[in-house]
Amino acid sequence: MSKLLVFGHQNPDTDAITSAISYAYLLKQLGEEAEAVALGEPNEETQYALNYFNRTAPRVVSSVSEETDRVALVDHNEVQQSASDVEKVEVQYVVDHHRIANFQTANPLFYRCEPVGCTNTILFKMYKEYGIEIPKEIAGLMVSAIVSDTLLFKSPTCTQQDIEAATELARIAEIDVNSYGLEMLKAGTNLSTKSEAELIDLDAKSFPMGSYNMRIAQVNVVDEQELLARREALEFSMKEANATHGYDTFLLVVTNILTSVSTGLVVGEALETVAKAFNTEYENGLLILPGVVSRKKQVVPPLTVAFEN
Amino acid sequence: MSKLLVFGHQNPDTDAITSAISYAYLLKQLGEEAEAVALGEPNEETQYALNYFNRTAPRVVSSVSEETDRVALVDHNEVQQSASDVEKVEVQYVVDHHRIANFQTANPLFYRCEPVGCTNTILFKMYKEYGIEIPKEIAGLMVSAIVSDTLLFKSPTCTQQDIEAATELARIAEIDVNSYGLEMLKAGTNLSTKSEAELIDLDAKSFPMGSYNMRIAQVNVVDEQELLARREALEFSMKEANATHGYDTFLLVVTNILTSVSTGLVVGEALETVAKAFNTEYENGLLILPGVVSRKKQVVPPLTVAFEN
Repeated sequence: MSKLLVFGHQNPDTDAITSAISYAYLLKQLGEEAEAVALGEPNEETQYALNYFNRTAPRVVSSVSEETDRVALVDHNEVQQSASDVEKVEVQYVVDHHRIANFQTANPLFYRCEPVGCTNTILFKMYKEYGIEIPKEIAGLMVSAIVSDTLLFKSPTCTQQDIEAATELARIAEIDVNSYGLEMLKAGTNLSTKSEAELIDLDAKSFPMGSYNMRIAQVNVVDEQELLARREALEFSMKEANATHGYDTFLLVVTNILTSVSTGLVVGEALETVAKAFNTEYENGLLILPGVVSRKKQVVPPLTVAFEN
Repeated sequence: MSKLLVFGHQNPDTDAITSAISYAYLLKQLGEEAEAVALGEPNEETQYALNYFNRTAPRVVSSVSEETDRVALVDHNEVQQSASDVEKVEVQYVVDHHRIANFQTANPLFYRCEPVGCTNTILFKMYKEYGIEIPKEIAGLMVSAIVSDTLLFKSPTCTQQDIEAATELARIAEIDVNSYGLEMLKAGTNLSTKSEAELIDLDAKSFPMGSYNMRIAQVNVVDEQELLARREALEFSMKEANATHGYDTFLLVVTNILTSVSTGLVVGEALETVAKAFNTEYENGLLILPGVVSRKKQVVPPLTVAFEN
């Protein structure tokens, strides 16, 4: 039997990278020959967590079938978010917290999905169920992912289970979750080294809405003014992206992780519909969105309703 | 929030009916307003188990969206095996032990699938994980399903986990699993009251294989001679089914649950290919298949290989 490769989604975030590490470790304790890999380099937030807990980043791959015939997916299931050749191998395990779509198998498999804020919250429960002790540095990576996915428990995607898992994992990792978590989130907001084209593509997804093709990017900051100083160049890049890729409207959500206020920059055809979706109006061409931190729960749904009516 | 309906697949077997009952009970203990229903009447094996443990059969429905907007699926996930209008409601929970196919959701959900012999084996683990006590009569229904799906642990689909769950459940239910299990399986083999058209459709599925459209039905017996006395009428019904539904070849697998020997009746175009798949030849027009009890693991795979080469 070939080695089991364990990996998260493309453009990996902290949960995608660390859940591959924590699940591969768990599977090894259960007797599987498993290796964590990643479909991309860690971002600066993830790198902060890896450095803090003395772990090297997983080996980066883009395809897997030349070295194995069986894999475990974490933090994703949809084929277009996975390894380029995932359909050539057998998916034997999935641990995830997203919807299920564009996914099918020929054989029964192990599939564990729960509607919680973070994959590592589910993995924490699995360690307990199997009675496997969590090493200190792995606990540290797991709590880092929960902090990242829930924006330190502020996101509406955060559940009581995420808070309980993070509390127990922080105890094992011997960290103060609030102070460590804030430093880690801040490490991910160092945007000064990135070009405008990179910034609007760091964490961006396309959403068809009614007859519109909507692009929504999100960037976390601790000071939105620093980013808004580059507003003209950002809007130029967004217009270019619309022209190149055929997006009708591009929304960049700049989320202040300290105040939980997002600022929206919008470029394209449907400026008024976007403002109406959030029941607000433009102030100097910007949308101010207090309390909005989750694209999945607070940005996509109201836009979907506005565009489809 | 509307009531959660919990149900197994169409043409329900013992696992489909009882896993709806055992999961609905578990969900109720966890605070959900859940009701077990079924997509058909229980068969005679299932009715034996329900009578023995003093439970009434779940209410039969074929569609669900007129009475709820959220459901839990057990022992299946594929849309064509489910309620006729399952795509109009939100699937919030799935507990299953099959491949995942023809299934997708708009939102994150609870999905628990493991490659074990029976859905109730997974539910047994979940009761333990949540620390919920299993009532005696529910334990009895759960062990009945494990006996049914694994043919009293003889099927190659049976895992160590199924055996451990059944042993513990039999203790709670206060039964001797071997003697009870055999009586229950025998109750399901009372075929004398059924017409030939009913017999070949009791547990039948279609499988595209290469360019062939293969129909494979399975019937459990304690005495194959009783059924083979009706061979001519059975073959007539199989020919009729081929003509009506466009099957190229119909295979009826008659499985003796006492001896673990199956007898194959074949009607249609590809007689020689079917025999070759099992490395055997016809004896008086019958295939004798010692040790073959699982359609999923021992019938479909060799046929797939034979037809696709």
